[in-house]
Amino acid sequence: MWTNVKSFLKKRTPAQVIVGYYALAITVSVLLLRIPAVHKNGVEIPFIDSVFTAVSAVSVTGLTVINISETYSVFGIFVLMAILQFGGIGVMTLGTFFWLLLGRKIGLKERRLIMVDQNQTSLAGLVNLIKDILKIILLIELIGTLILGIYFLNYYSNWQDAFFHGLFASISATTNGGFDITGQSLEPYANDYFVQLINIILITLGAIGFPVLIEVKQFLIKKESQQAFRFSLFTKLTSITFLALLVFGTVVILLLEWRHAFANETWHKSFFYALFQSASTRSGGLATIDVSNFSQATLIVMSGLMFIGASPSSVGGGIRTTTFALNILYLWHFAKGNRHIKIFRRELHEDDIRKSLAVTMLAFALCTTSLVALSISEDHSLMELMFEICSAFGTTGFSMGITSELSSFGKIVIMILMFIGRIGLLSFLFMIGGKEEKTNYHYPKERVIIG
Amino acid sequence: MWTNVKSFLKKRTPAQVIVGYYALAITVSVLLLRIPAVHKNGVEIPFIDSVFTAVSAVSVTGLTVINISETYSVFGIFVLMAILQFGGIGVMTLGTFFWLLLGRKIGLKERRLIMVDQNQTSLAGLVNLIKDILKIILLIELIGTLILGIYFLNYYSNWQDAFFHGLFASISATTNGGFDITGQSLEPYANDYFVQLINIILITLGAIGFPVLIEVKQFLIKKESQQAFRFSLFTKLTSITFLALLVFGTVVILLLEWRHAFANETWHKSFFYALFQSASTRSGGLATIDVSNFSQATLIVMSGLMFIGASPSSVGGGIRTTTFALNILYLWHFAKGNRHIKIFRRELHEDDIRKSLAVTMLAFALCTTSLVALSISEDHSLMELMFEICSAFGTTGFSMGITSELSSFGKIVIMILMFIGRIGLLSFLFMIGGKEEKTNYHYPKERVIIG
Ligand SMILES: [K+]
Ligand SMILES: [K+]
Repeated sequence: MWTNVKSFLKKRTPAQVIVGYYALAITVSVLLLRIPAVHKNGVEIPFIDSVFTAVSAVSVTGLTVINISETYSVFGIFVLMAILQFGGIGVMTLGTFFWLLLGRKIGLKERRLIMVDQNQTSLAGLVNLIKDILKIILLIELIGTLILGIYFLNYYSNWQDAFFHGLFASISATTNGGFDITGQSLEPYANDYFVQLINIILITLGAIGFPVLIEVKQFLIKKESQQAFRFSLFTKLTSITFLALLVFGTVVILLLEWRHAFANETWHKSFFYALFQSASTRSGGLATIDVSNFSQATLIVMSGLMFIGASPSSVGGGIRTTTFALNILYLWHFAKGNRHIKIFRRELHEDDIRKSLAVTMLAFALCTTSLVALSISEDHSLMELMFEICSAFGTTGFSMGITSELSSFGKIVIMILMFIGRIGLLSFLFMIGGKEEKTNYHYPKERVIIG
Repeated sequence: MWTNVKSFLKKRTPAQVIVGYYALAITVSVLLLRIPAVHKNGVEIPFIDSVFTAVSAVSVTGLTVINISETYSVFGIFVLMAILQFGGIGVMTLGTFFWLLLGRKIGLKERRLIMVDQNQTSLAGLVNLIKDILKIILLIELIGTLILGIYFLNYYSNWQDAFFHGLFASISATTNGGFDITGQSLEPYANDYFVQLINIILITLGAIGFPVLIEVKQFLIKKESQQAFRFSLFTKLTSITFLALLVFGTVVILLLEWRHAFANETWHKSFFYALFQSASTRSGGLATIDVSNFSQATLIVMSGLMFIGASPSSVGGGIRTTTFALNILYLWHFAKGNRHIKIFRRELHEDDIRKSLAVTMLAFALCTTSLVALSISEDHSLMELMFEICSAFGTTGFSMGITSELSSFGKIVIMILMFIGRIGLLSFLFMIGGKEEKTNYHYPKERVIIG
């Protein structure tokens, strides 16, 4: 059986494996969510809404056309948690696997990013890798559940309720699922900074990317045995970008809402509102405030942050933090008239720059096309539609409240965006695109006027 | 004196010359528009509105915070026409000059784009070039004035009025100025397809770029003497993109408004509405219909078309048609896994691709930043602000009617956009940026995960 799987996987491109995994996961999820027992007594929802919930859960987005706590039974919520796990961990695993394959293609030196196993690109290596990812994520979720569960004893009268909510909150935060069973996201905890901090930490651990987690683990092991360790360029770039976006978002939301949505709040509550919503734009999607209270300027900035999304090989979507960082570095060096992009005493590869620029532009084209499409089918303002589209593409799950009002066509558009946002535009492209063309002829080069 | 000018110009970069010319033109225009005689009796306008009109006229945008026909005297309107001429022809000349300098830098072979003179990059060559441009543009305007002036005898009771309106319409269309003295753009001619066709032709001749005009002239001369002639890659690319955008815009506007703004119109009137507004998004800015009647989807598409703008070395703004074409070609070849971009049996230069991508992204960043800024300072919807911003950056001059309601801060933002849109982001960058950095050291390359 292993040999069959092995030979099947060998014939597939990584992109095909990732897309295939997701298509399969969505199909299974839809089937699961059509089991009558997942619903509360007497509740029935249309087929397209089950599909929407499945896509939203598999892509760990959290946009929803129905109220989860009013629709699903306890069994249903356990099914939802299972789907979130497969959605979140699935792409993390496959994304990392994809990176390994890429690494194999470009030489031994670059492979060191994931230092788990010499034999890592074999099927055994993949299994070890999946085990490693599962271990780390389940450990994070377990600790999260324990902390939140114990703490929730303050909120719930019995330990079953407290730990049920703790478990759901922990999984929803770590997988960046963005779903809630409170009916109003984390708004009930708007005054509880402890719950917010735990959620921010869980969201960040899920969204910062598996390669970073594993390098940190490796760093700690090496440190113990006093060996030298260098973080990869990827880890440095993505972590710093992640932190920079968090700080930027917090400062901007705080400044823009200081005299607006936060006008009647204390400074610390305002700060936590800003911090939590900023952290959540990476891809968490949980909210401690109704975002439609925010001003247009804040909503545009948040749309941009969601469009950027989380780090590669994480539970998040969007164009990814590295892509954004490479764009910025490219533009900065271009404006300075500098061809070679140097950072952290390393030089970036031209192909990576090319990819970043292409991914960003294609993502922009995709979102703009969706904007036109939804403008035709829906009766909502540009701001509401843009926010919803960026949220779907970034698999964030924030909404100004229009998700449940979408037409069937609108739901399909949002589902496609969640799907592509989750698997990544690059994987999506590699799936639909062909192989590298080999051409032996060249035409004379000719210059044209730009801009 | 010539030697002084020559040595002065030699010490400046082309970008500095272009930006300097514009800064000077705006200053002179403001001074001219503060002469009391330019206003109608008893009319006084605030200083910032004079500055706004000057920037709008020099950048041939046509956005206006005042009603031209109610504000300016006949003398004032002649001043305005003069400013439009200097604005429109100025950058056309300087843009072409810039291209020549660029051409000189990259070798003799590429220089052939402008085949006016062997000695073209000298000051004498520049003077010849300016003469050539002036001849072509003035000839176009003269013919336009004659046709429109004679035709306007149907609309006006005396020949002075007819030719005054014909002259203004011809200059406003050819320079893509977008101003009107009717008080409601070309809406009075909504049923007059002849006037619309003449305007479309004049707008197109102004916006298609001077290198194209001069190559066509050269083609006709060579054809007469039966010599071989090859159009440059630039001319082919920009002309086809121009045409493609015109057709795309017409079809999309027609489809989206068929049952909406055009619901009660005949098919031919609908077609002309679509055609005219599409042609006008290149940078003309004249309208035969109040664009705020259009649906949100149409307005988004028009915003995109205005953002793209006109061809380089033309009277228009935006990221330019070539930049857009190169982006599309890049993405297309990237998706197919093809590194070398071949088109019309020529290969594009990597540096041009790099520039196109950078210009587009920077333009996008500029417009998004403006969108956030205007969202803070103004009380308008995202759609209205986005439309206004794209119109300013593309120096198009369409508006959903919010220009006169802008705050002073908002007016300044729009002025900056018109200025940068007109001189081109690349020139703007080269002005503020430094020289190409020369580095003799390299770091090891390291790959990162993208998207
Ligand atoms: K999410
Ligand atoms: K214009």
